Amino acid sequence: MTQEDKELSLSPENYSLLTDLYQLTMAACYVGEKIDQRQASFELFARRLPPGFGYLIAMGLAQALDYLEKFRFSSEQVDALKSTGIFTNAPNEFWSLLAEAKFTGDVWAVPEGTAIFPNQPLLRIEAPLWQAQLVETYLLNTINYQTLIATKAARMRDIAGNDTKLLEFGTRRAFSPQASIWAARAALAGGMDATSNVLAALKLGRKPSGTMAHALVMAISAVEGSEEDAFKAFQRYFPTAPLLIDTYDTLAATRLLAQRVKQGEMQLSGVRLDSGDLVKLSQEVRVLLPEVTIFASGDIDEWEIARLQRENACIDGYGIGTKLVTGVP
Amino acid sequence: MTQEDKELSLSPENYSLLTDLYQLTMAACYVGEKIDQRQASFELFARRLPPGFGYLIAMGLAQALDYLEKFRFSSEQVDALKSTGIFTNAPNEFWSLLAEAKFTGDVWAVPEGTAIFPNQPLLRIEAPLWQAQLVETYLLNTINYQTLIATKAARMRDIAGNDTKLLEFGTRRAFSPQASIWAARAALAGGMDATSNVLAALKLGRKPSGTMAHALVMAISAVEGSEEDAFKAFQRYFPTAPLLIDTYDTLAATRLLAQRVKQGEMQLSGVRLDSGDLVKLSQEVRVLLPEVTIFASGDIDEWEIARLQRENACIDGYGIGTKLVTGVP
Repeated sequence: MTQEDKELSLSPENYSLLTDLYQLTMAACYVGEKIDQRQASFELFARRLPPGFGYLIAMGLAQALDYLEKFRFSSEQVDALKSTGIFTNAPNEFWSLLAEAKFTGDVWAVPEGTAIFPNQPLLRIEAPLWQAQLVETYLLNTINYQTLIATKAARMRDIAGNDTKLLEFGTRRAFSPQASIWAARAALAGGMDATSNVLAALKLGRKPSGTMAHALVMAISAVEGSEEDAFKAFQRYFPTAPLLIDTYDTLAATRLLAQRVKQGEMQLSGVRLDSGDLVKLSQEVRVLLPEVTIFASGDIDEWEIARLQRENACIDGYGIGTKLVTGVP
Repeated sequence: MTQEDKELSLSPENYSLLTDLYQLTMAACYVGEKIDQRQASFELFARRLPPGFGYLIAMGLAQALDYLEKFRFSSEQVDALKSTGIFTNAPNEFWSLLAEAKFTGDVWAVPEGTAIFPNQPLLRIEAPLWQAQLVETYLLNTINYQTLIATKAARMRDIAGNDTKLLEFGTRRAFSPQASIWAARAALAGGMDATSNVLAALKLGRKPSGTMAHALVMAISAVEGSEEDAFKAFQRYFPTAPLLIDTYDTLAATRLLAQRVKQGEMQLSGVRLDSGDLVKLSQEVRVLLPEVTIFASGDIDEWEIARLQRENACIDGYGIGTKLVTGVP
């Protein structure tokens, strides 16, 4: 096994084999029955939406089209398939078909970002039967996931309103590094403002976004003596970055910051709350720090945003991770 | 934007930037405060488990270690970070630290496959503070997801028993191609027998597994005239592959197959049910085809396996997709 195999890393040249076995066995059967070149079509659509969902936002078409353009089988891939022993009785013509494979069909799709509804196709493939069969798995993979994330992001934007900042913080909870990049793409396309994923932001030509973690407060205050030292230290290098204020005692931290701001000893643009009663805490922070942007994080989703709004929380922005990137409806 | 960026494909050399922005800003702050080289430690553990879960199966350590071995920043990556403008006030020493970065810490972890419980660490990092901070995001990413999937797979194995076949069919529903590969790895490690993902199986040195889809029955019967023609056609090339029997009328298909088997006109090793009342249908198929392996699929998870067992379904194996790879508890 090569090092690349050990890492299970993927390059787009691998993707033709990123398919369910039955797509290949069925294609071999079509070749044997001499119907592999018949024109076929299939459509991707959702039969029904999760409870409370009114629409889906179509996403993932760019990656789908890249895949179709690159659709080839190398001789190594063909040999690897042969070596499984599964295709012993498959017709010989199947192997020559794979060796010369490219996607020659047509793709009809709604543009990425289109709102669609149950039973309405996102994408339609018209292609020789064997091709339509083989590409199905990958197309579902890219379009299912990105559509799910773009939809969740759009729902959060709908409920949060246009003036609320929505930051994608899900990388650590995403389902693999590649999923974190695709989630960032779909979340930004679905209406979120920024991602904390540095690599995703750079690849997408965006500026990454973030605050600070409890670890910094604990590390600096352990050495320099207090939470305030941690705030000062972070502001020394990142003067406009929001401060995380719930490490020890949220209200004590808020009062201290309010005093420093009032005395002109500190500029403060934002704070983040990551625990506790977000309604009550955010209201109290607003009174003490009326000019400061208040971010909230911690298992936020569109339902939680709606609840916080109903209960008059004073929150200007959300950092959203787990409930976005794991696609929980 | 290069073609690689357009595809959002990833190579392990990218992974050092697959981190939350705040890990980098905090690291810069540690450098400025001259505490970046202090020894630090952190542990990954779960505070609590999803309802009904009694354990987690630790997984993802192999990818975590590969990442730590490769942890470097290229000059292009450093330049890309500088160009964001976020680090204008960061100390200069931060850039030289990144340029020479490698992971010099220690890793303590339970072996992959270990059952662990709430508040029990899966992994402990001891390293200079700035390194421990930077690597946290990636380590969570790989270990969270693979642990989730291995745990779900182990729960299904626990409930299904050792004699039931469990096949991973989730690629089309997985959260990106890389997630599908990691899901296959974790599912096999967690106790499932095989994956339908051809690329994952080949990378993992396993034989891929599958049956056939409704598309084949519809395509062949449209041309050759009947569902039976489709069964015969598929068996011509894959004589031991299970047949999917619920495309039109499950019991009619079963009766026809039973007759062909009885008359010695057909060998039949397995059938798959993908819809309908799985309890009733599987019992009726068992009576008609007593020697044949019965597979079931369609939103199966450990709870559904338990229900089917309680209600005396006659099912020898399951194809499991959505509820496994999307990690639904």
